[in-house]
Amino acid sequence: MNNVSITDTVWFDTESNRLRLIDQTKLPGELCILSLSTVEEMEHAIRTLQVRGAPAIGVAAAIGLAVLAREMRPFDEALLLEYAGRLKATRPTAVNLAWAVDRMLAGPRNPEGLACAAMAIWEEDIATCRAIGGHGSVLLRDGDAVLTHCNAGRLATVRYGTALAPVYVAAEQGKQVRVYADETRPLLQGARLTACELHAAGIPVTLLCDNMAAALLQSGAVAAVLVGADRVARNGDAANKIGSLGLSILARHFGVPFYVCAPFSTIDFACADGEAIPIEHRAPEEVTEIWYKTPMAPAGIEVFNPAFDIIPHENITAFVTERGVIQPDNLSN
Amino acid sequence: MNNVSITDTVWFDTESNRLRLIDQTKLPGELCILSLSTVEEMEHAIRTLQVRGAPAIGVAAAIGLAVLAREMRPFDEALLLEYAGRLKATRPTAVNLAWAVDRMLAGPRNPEGLACAAMAIWEEDIATCRAIGGHGSVLLRDGDAVLTHCNAGRLATVRYGTALAPVYVAAEQGKQVRVYADETRPLLQGARLTACELHAAGIPVTLLCDNMAAALLQSGAVAAVLVGADRVARNGDAANKIGSLGLSILARHFGVPFYVCAPFSTIDFACADGEAIPIEHRAPEEVTEIWYKTPMAPAGIEVFNPAFDIIPHENITAFVTERGVIQPDNLSN
Repeated sequence: MNNVSITDTVWFDTESNRLRLIDQTKLPGELCILSLSTVEEMEHAIRTLQVRGAPAIGVAAAIGLAVLAREMRPFDEALLLEYAGRLKATRPTAVNLAWAVDRMLAGPRNPEGLACAAMAIWEEDIATCRAIGGHGSVLLRDGDAVLTHCNAGRLATVRYGTALAPVYVAAEQGKQVRVYADETRPLLQGARLTACELHAAGIPVTLLCDNMAAALLQSGAVAAVLVGADRVARNGDAANKIGSLGLSILARHFGVPFYVCAPFSTIDFACADGEAIPIEHRAPEEVTEIWYKTPMAPAGIEVFNPAFDIIPHENITAFVTERGVIQPDNLSN
Repeated sequence: MNNVSITDTVWFDTESNRLRLIDQTKLPGELCILSLSTVEEMEHAIRTLQVRGAPAIGVAAAIGLAVLAREMRPFDEALLLEYAGRLKATRPTAVNLAWAVDRMLAGPRNPEGLACAAMAIWEEDIATCRAIGGHGSVLLRDGDAVLTHCNAGRLATVRYGTALAPVYVAAEQGKQVRVYADETRPLLQGARLTACELHAAGIPVTLLCDNMAAALLQSGAVAAVLVGADRVARNGDAANKIGSLGLSILARHFGVPFYVCAPFSTIDFACADGEAIPIEHRAPEEVTEIWYKTPMAPAGIEVFNPAFDIIPHENITAFVTERGVIQPDNLSN
């Protein structure tokens, strides 16, 4: 694993047979690397968002399954299927998780074969995100500013990100692109992760609260909105972090292009439209207690806390994928 | 002051000659009553949002000026004018502050006269908000749910609130009305104040993050959006807590009526439109540090932190004032 640097979000430590990943709940305060070998640890890591971001979850589950297979003495296919089911059940919305697990099961079901398949998924994620960045960078000009929501950057994938890949590649091309980052309540992935990784990479970043996006778009400062996606339906409706629906309506209102950047594996051709995509609702404490510490609302209050919403295809200017920039109504061609 | 109960947000303790108010930075954890007698304490209370909400700030400044006048030995009109200027300068957006101070100066400039004027402003605030509630309650039916942003409730006025007055009066009429409360970043007035006062009053309240409003409005659960205003221009453009612009666009998109509830004194006929209203920008730490305690973003990050935005008059279904429900283009008639 000589080519793995600490800048990767998730990787396969084949020597010690461990799934390794940056614990994203500790950022930006602490860079803590986890080393996982049991299905319970992996379930916990995905559920509690130690690893998050649709592509990164898929890669983590694939590597996790390979690690679990290699730990068995002897290898037990029935147990492998049980583990696969448990990992798939950790989070419902992102399709990449199910996609990666299903792809693992479609290949040779033995420790060697599963390890090779996991490495292939890991390497493809890097190449795919680099290609998204290449296609997306064409849309950005020197001096542009973009607005993004949640974290669809390096920390949401293995290395390049999806929504931020065009920004990283544009920077490699010598273009100066500023990123406005929605802080993204309730878990503040924009403040903790997006601002953190861009700041570390030397890309200018300005943080704002989610409710300030309308005033920012109105000001004319933003050339484009770039977001990721957790699942895209056949008709182009895209599920993404809660707040994306509102942002897409505001972008359209103010005439700002809205791009969804995602690998082709995010498209779920079994889903006809957004209504068929399951939306995860999460614990009230995410909203009432700031980062699980200080109560910020009366005890016992009711809370509305969906983790995702659906961006209607008519609000999406284009999808930026590893195959190129594609209009919503051309996804299946 | 026998008719003052602890449920009032701000009042004049005439016996001890003090401006008394609930310290809103301590809610919901602690009910702390401040007792102020110097101009420095009053400036601090307004600037740090110990008292906030356009009508409450106006009442506090009026009472504060009377307290300061009565503390002078001997009374000094030049000093009174200096204090008036200092109080007016504490926050720029809300017009009620300047309105209340100017009204104090327009009457007899002696301790007795100023005390009477302050009591009149305090009593009028209660009556005005009660009237807003009466007119607004007609718009609400039993079983309705409304969405509100920031806190324009009891804690933003002396007693009834503006945006929440229709809900309180509807409850008195026996109607069950649920309130969805945007938490309202960065200072969480929705979580800390709106959820707190409604919960205490026995009115059902559901808390959500600001970026969840689009999904909520899309669901059809909300009959109307009710917000307050800090200043309304002649053409009906209304400045209100940051996020109100976006909410008005979303409400219009989903066909949900959007009401701005405010006393007539909030209308600034000297302002032709929203562009003439000054917008306060506040400190980055409000965004990067959760409630001034835990850093949630990389140190030194740039931050976009306007405190208000402008709701265009075309997004406002009607204004609910003490004179009745008025369409934006009929404000000056």
